[in-house]
Amino acid sequence: MNTSYKELLNKAIEANHTRGYWAAYPEFPKVYGEEADPKGKEAFAKMLNNNFTELGVDSNEWIGEEVSPFLQIGTGIRYPKLSIDTLISQSKNAQTNWATSDIETRAQILIDSLERIKLRFFDIAYATMHSTGQAYMMSFQASGPHASDRALEVIAMGYEALSSIPAKASWVKPMGKFDLTLTKSFKGIPKGIGLVIGCSTFPIWNTVPGLFADLITGNVTIVKPHPKAVLPIAIVVAEIRNALAAAGYDKNIVQLAVDTTESPITKQLAEHDEVKLIDFTGGNAFGDYIEGIAHKVTFTEKAGVNCAIVDSAVDFKTVAGNLAFSACLYSGQMCTAPQNIYIPETGIETATGKISFDEAAQQIAQAINDLVNNPKMGSHILGAIQSDVTLNRLKEAPSWGGKLLLASQPIKNDEFENARCFSPAVIELTSADHEIYQKECFGPIIYIIKTKSTEDSIKITEDLSRQKGAITCLAYCTSEATMQTIENRMNAVFTPVSFNFQGAAFVNSHAAFSDFHVTGGNASGNASFTNAEYINKRFVWVGNRYMS
Amino acid sequence: MNTSYKELLNKAIEANHTRGYWAAYPEFPKVYGEEADPKGKEAFAKMLNNNFTELGVDSNEWIGEEVSPFLQIGTGIRYPKLSIDTLISQSKNAQTNWATSDIETRAQILIDSLERIKLRFFDIAYATMHSTGQAYMMSFQASGPHASDRALEVIAMGYEALSSIPAKASWVKPMGKFDLTLTKSFKGIPKGIGLVIGCSTFPIWNTVPGLFADLITGNVTIVKPHPKAVLPIAIVVAEIRNALAAAGYDKNIVQLAVDTTESPITKQLAEHDEVKLIDFTGGNAFGDYIEGIAHKVTFTEKAGVNCAIVDSAVDFKTVAGNLAFSACLYSGQMCTAPQNIYIPETGIETATGKISFDEAAQQIAQAINDLVNNPKMGSHILGAIQSDVTLNRLKEAPSWGGKLLLASQPIKNDEFENARCFSPAVIELTSADHEIYQKECFGPIIYIIKTKSTEDSIKITEDLSRQKGAITCLAYCTSEATMQTIENRMNAVFTPVSFNFQGAAFVNSHAAFSDFHVTGGNASGNASFTNAEYINKRFVWVGNRYMS
Repeated sequence: MNTSYKELLNKAIEANHTRGYWAAYPEFPKVYGEEADPKGKEAFAKMLNNNFTELGVDSNEWIGEEVSPFLQIGTGIRYPKLSIDTLISQSKNAQTNWATSDIETRAQILIDSLERIKLRFFDIAYATMHSTGQAYMMSFQASGPHASDRALEVIAMGYEALSSIPAKASWVKPMGKFDLTLTKSFKGIPKGIGLVIGCSTFPIWNTVPGLFADLITGNVTIVKPHPKAVLPIAIVVAEIRNALAAAGYDKNIVQLAVDTTESPITKQLAEHDEVKLIDFTGGNAFGDYIEGIAHKVTFTEKAGVNCAIVDSAVDFKTVAGNLAFSACLYSGQMCTAPQNIYIPETGIETATGKISFDEAAQQIAQAINDLVNNPKMGSHILGAIQSDVTLNRLKEAPSWGGKLLLASQPIKNDEFENARCFSPAVIELTSADHEIYQKECFGPIIYIIKTKSTEDSIKITEDLSRQKGAITCLAYCTSEATMQTIENRMNAVFTPVSFNFQGAAFVNSHAAFSDFHVTGGNASGNASFTNAEYINKRFVWVGNRYMS
Repeated sequence: MNTSYKELLNKAIEANHTRGYWAAYPEFPKVYGEEADPKGKEAFAKMLNNNFTELGVDSNEWIGEEVSPFLQIGTGIRYPKLSIDTLISQSKNAQTNWATSDIETRAQILIDSLERIKLRFFDIAYATMHSTGQAYMMSFQASGPHASDRALEVIAMGYEALSSIPAKASWVKPMGKFDLTLTKSFKGIPKGIGLVIGCSTFPIWNTVPGLFADLITGNVTIVKPHPKAVLPIAIVVAEIRNALAAAGYDKNIVQLAVDTTESPITKQLAEHDEVKLIDFTGGNAFGDYIEGIAHKVTFTEKAGVNCAIVDSAVDFKTVAGNLAFSACLYSGQMCTAPQNIYIPETGIETATGKISFDEAAQQIAQAINDLVNNPKMGSHILGAIQSDVTLNRLKEAPSWGGKLLLASQPIKNDEFENARCFSPAVIELTSADHEIYQKECFGPIIYIIKTKSTEDSIKITEDLSRQKGAITCLAYCTSEATMQTIENRMNAVFTPVSFNFQGAAFVNSHAAFSDFHVTGGNASGNASFTNAEYINKRFVWVGNRYMS
């Protein structure tokens, strides 16, 4: 491995260890240059209505059904269809080649792939926009640098884990009159074929941690994207294959397995004997099924109900603004977005006096209304609705009960006149309406729930985390003692708390090298980006002993 | 934590990292003194036919059914019987007390418990002899210093894991015109109640890794020993409770749950909602059941079929002697003992010429016969047969097929005239007899199997590891190329290989701070003493964020 890779890895490992200041890429905004964006747009335009040939894979059948939420038309991009047998046998053929490579080589190739992916960030941004409905800026950040940060984090942690035990050691046991000396060797043996199942809203950010974790630990990998969000990850897979080929390795160490909504192949792949590791992001029903397949090691990110506990604040205006932004960002289609906002019926203490429940609820609804109707913000924050299911849910939500504080409305997008862009519905409930607010309503539906007290808010949030899981919890509170109570009780149900976020701090963001994304301890998922377990479960330490 | 504990921990962590020379306790044999052994014997004698009151637990009902394999009489020691409800509610009551203690305190208390256990090594040795049938020396070593080494290893690794992420960090994100600064805290939250299920042959060595791993990571723990081997671990549990009480902690952080063969309670405990972690050592059927219980994190050591591949040797006499010792030690009642010895029909190359299959098989049988009939060795190596099931298997084995090379015979024990001591049965088979040798025959049954070639021996061993699992594989080979083949193919099925062991090196021994015991990758068990996963699966990292 050359020095610069080594330095980068060490820097990454160090950053991970201190979990503090992380700014390994301050040059990011500078390096892309003025021409990067139009070039990306042009590259994306060329892909439309064409076969995606970058994988270097041929097929008799080409499939694809992506629809742009901004254009409301199919992109016409088609991908090679491969049979399960072909996918598995190609993975098996590539296995020894990859499993016997050393960790230095693997790290080098994977970092090279990140360098190649970096050159495609703008192609990827447009691919992400027109499959997920994320607005331009989020598409660039989440699928580009933020996802690559997560990938680099996993490479660094894999490198650290596999370097933690020496390849060879001399072992001496004093036996009294003589010493017994043995030579020992230790190898991290990969588990087998890894399957990484993507989702429709974050096709790269949620896929690369599992993908790079499989690869850095020596497992050949099959990526099965959501049929409605293939292109972004197809570009990533193509670039990893290019990096592999450039280093003289078998491209099929990573493969893309595309299917259609009509003829899904995920279960066949997941249940295949040769598949040992499964990473999954998506809904609870399928996630539970994945976790239940015998003899597989699974890493899931499912869904939970994220809550915000509002107890007290210095300035409620900043609270309302922060909640509005977090709830509107990508129309609540983030697994970290808050859904339920609990406010006590007794109101909220602030530096300038008490605010009643009604006033607080009204201020939040108003902040949302202001944000979505601000022409410089609205559509750029909301993006577009990815799936019909989410759109239908949004339309139906008011009929489930409660008081509609703010109705969902279509929001104009200046660039795309057909964009499926809608503001959130804000609905007032009381703590008795648990049948409504205990369900996860993925998308732009916000419940403001009148509770008896902050203790009531905590109890509901705690119970909900225990039963349904939660990825985030937001809390506004000026009392140290109450903060401690919230923290202890939510942490005990394995849910992290973000306190008093305002300004540029949003509960939605989980930064690589610092935040654990999903704890893995509650029903929202059994894995965490990125703890030691996320790496160590993918390989087996085997020690051999030699008489000298 | 005072300095000496800290030094000890650092030393342990360092030793673990370098996995090299480990001799933290060269003073062990010196410190016990001349009076330690008779005192231990006396302490054990006093326990016979009495209630075991050291736990400080009262009960209306006292139970116990241990029988000494050396004396062939019941020990009459009885233990307090507690209901499942009592055990669980006492664990739950102790939970917050332990979960909120810091890692420094937990490490200090657990090391204090090891200091207390050290003073009981000879009591424990006699308790182990008269429950498991291990001979005196193994009883002392395996249940005493070797088990405490494993416990210390787990304490050190838990301390390292929980110290790997800082409790608090400042995180700064440059936003262009300003910096976004957040304070973050990270906590390792224990999963809940741990259940550790012991076995009848190694009641301490196989129990303390899971027990100390649960405790160091903040989980309250219930130890459920095998009803026929309670006393050794009861002493250990009592001393941990003493260390907890001395530090002002709730004794019920660790509890002993004793049951009887007639009325077992293991399933009720294992399936209890509050039990989140299960450690198990024992047979495959029950182990598979444990692994299959939904929503539990399990750590199992089950059984596999351990093989020895004999290809070539410098001096076959040393090979035969080493195999004989490994097979006879504790009458093959070690999970690491070899069962199947493969020798090619073409014979074995040695420095002094070729040895035919028949000659090699005969030399192994002869070495076993010499060993068991040596009055200074025989009964001291063999120990006694722990269970009726093992004894019956030994008696039946010759009727299953093959050619009996050496019949099992009773071996005289000078100290205990009723000792259930028998030499191994050595049976010759061919590779076609797979229905016989593919079964695990726990106890002193040795198969010497005539194969077509070394390649045939490797293939059989590899397939057997894949299907039934294996904890060890022994190989004798003078060709570097063949050694490499054996190593690669066995490692690929997650089985470690020990090469050319002779003299004081035995495949049976797995040393703490150096050898992984069970890889966790094949059917012989899903956990490994002690890899990072063994620790990390017991707690959840939760990160909180605070706006400064």
